[in-house]
Amino acid sequence: MHEPAAREVLTPLAQVSARRGLDPLAARLTDLRSWLAADLAEVDRALAPGAGGGHLAKRAADHLLSSPGKRIRPLCVILAARLGERRADRTVRDLATACELVHAATLLHDDVIDEGMERRGAPAARVVYGNSASILAGDHLLVEALRRVRSTGLDDLLGGLLGVIAQMVEAEAMQLEARGRFEPSREAYQAVVEGKTAALFRWGLGAGGVAAGLPAEAVEALGVVGLEFGVAFQLIDDALDLQGDPSETGKSALTDLREGKLTWPLILACEADAALLQDLRGVAEGHGDLPGLAARIVATGAVERTRQEAARRATAAKTALADVPDSAARRAIEAVVEAAAQRTR
Amino acid sequence: MHEPAAREVLTPLAQVSARRGLDPLAARLTDLRSWLAADLAEVDRALAPGAGGGHLAKRAADHLLSSPGKRIRPLCVILAARLGERRADRTVRDLATACELVHAATLLHDDVIDEGMERRGAPAARVVYGNSASILAGDHLLVEALRRVRSTGLDDLLGGLLGVIAQMVEAEAMQLEARGRFEPSREAYQAVVEGKTAALFRWGLGAGGVAAGLPAEAVEALGVVGLEFGVAFQLIDDALDLQGDPSETGKSALTDLREGKLTWPLILACEADAALLQDLRGVAEGHGDLPGLAARIVATGAVERTRQEAARRATAAKTALADVPDSAARRAIEAVVEAAAQRTR
Repeated sequence: MHEPAAREVLTPLAQVSARRGLDPLAARLTDLRSWLAADLAEVDRALAPGAGGGHLAKRAADHLLSSPGKRIRPLCVILAARLGERRADRTVRDLATACELVHAATLLHDDVIDEGMERRGAPAARVVYGNSASILAGDHLLVEALRRVRSTGLDDLLGGLLGVIAQMVEAEAMQLEARGRFEPSREAYQAVVEGKTAALFRWGLGAGGVAAGLPAEAVEALGVVGLEFGVAFQLIDDALDLQGDPSETGKSALTDLREGKLTWPLILACEADAALLQDLRGVAEGHGDLPGLAARIVATGAVERTRQEAARRATAAKTALADVPDSAARRAIEAVVEAAAQRTR
Repeated sequence: MHEPAAREVLTPLAQVSARRGLDPLAARLTDLRSWLAADLAEVDRALAPGAGGGHLAKRAADHLLSSPGKRIRPLCVILAARLGERRADRTVRDLATACELVHAATLLHDDVIDEGMERRGAPAARVVYGNSASILAGDHLLVEALRRVRSTGLDDLLGGLLGVIAQMVEAEAMQLEARGRFEPSREAYQAVVEGKTAALFRWGLGAGGVAAGLPAEAVEALGVVGLEFGVAFQLIDDALDLQGDPSETGKSALTDLREGKLTWPLILACEADAALLQDLRGVAEGHGDLPGLAARIVATGAVERTRQEAARRATAAKTALADVPDSAARRAIEAVVEAAAQRTR
């Protein structure tokens, strides 16, 4: 039933060059939408705010969820599930929804921690409802996510997700502790990006595979795909902070730079030009010329090399996918990974 | 093997009158310590900070856990488990530890929300490590608690605990929203106290019963015991805010009053003297005579009537216990409930 639709998805892959100027990820997600319509609609429904009611924590959470974002994580779960023969729609949708809920929960806490003002092009929940409500909203969504995974009866996936959340908390704590210190370390960056971003992608792709009844080796391969894809995704986020259009990315430019976050391009730039380090510290302390600094970072080639590293990670993800039998779903995952590593928002 | 020790526990119950001036709950917990030594030591070990290491969120959590508090929740789990024949020590200890971890997690978030300065007689974790670290520390402990319950394989208890945490978040959100409004409502108070305090007691007592293999009716009765006991416990907390010795309670006097929290004695006092309402609003807005207001509240008899209500709840808890076969453990639970409703700290 879904093979014809799958071709619909894949055809446009050949047309990437024709779409120059369009965001490749946005285009790819639109293409996939018809194939995955039923599952995605169910996730949308599950994430949709109610009639504006409920307690304060729920309303603050709904505020974030009403700006849906890219929904890349649930998409990963759903696509991984399509790799298998077994149809477990309800389960797949619950896992996909849970994956997005965990992501949203961490955003609500991270925005309080980072004093973020905007999220997805709208005022952050903490700006509208206050920091306290945003903390409780994160707690609320975390519990919702875990209840949903538990409802599938896939106990190992619940255990895995708890481990991932622990890793996310640890990574956020590492990042918080390193804030403003600017000790450029590739190892520290790896640990943070794996914990903050890639671990949940790893879980999501693996969870889809488990739900679809894939053999253990395929599930393991999907975990690697998720990990590499997640790192690539974050690297592009890092690059977009320095060279992205705020009206497209939905967040202010140079946010990471202003907040003293040690992103991959900053590490590369400091390795190339040691004098940058002092100026980065100055910006984090509230003085210094932010756009001028960004231009100097870009001039080192660090942003370009970050995009290249993202492309390498995307290739590693696609290599890992070779351990999964070829199918329309596998080709769709390849396309999404490729597009995400080229995205402009 | 434990009957003689149990008698050791129960003997001092007859001596309450001889102990006038001592805190009855503290005395009772000391008495129980030898009987439950192995289980309590294991919980202590599980909750003990490491060598001061670990990431920032872990260190902030350890800061709170290093001031152990009353450990009344793990005690409830362990005592409920002693009601049964089945010995499942590892499981009981995991459930008892988890119960305390959930409580600690909510304290870490609540202190950020309430801007609390002190906790258990020491500076709050958020004062020492910052609000952001305290948020992450709460997330960290919540996940630790859930992992521990999951490790027991008692899936229904995990589902129950997730429901309890959702209720705790909702209650905290309700309280946050009502802050400073001073619309005295007995119904709103009930909902908040059940969610914030009693639900976790209910889970803890029921969890101990499940681990011990008690029949469903006994587990249900234990849930009622926990609910009534939890409400009684909170009522006494409310009373101690107005009439407690800060050097004993480990928190500043009149904290709830200053923060504009609608406690049970405030509701009773406003019902007795409508003029108080305006002055309560004034205190919450930062002006007004705090000790003078507290004296007026006490003069209405509201604190005394709160203690009476706590005693009624304790009696209800003991009545529910009648559905559990008589044993040393049952008599110990009765003693703890009774002592908690009379405590002075």
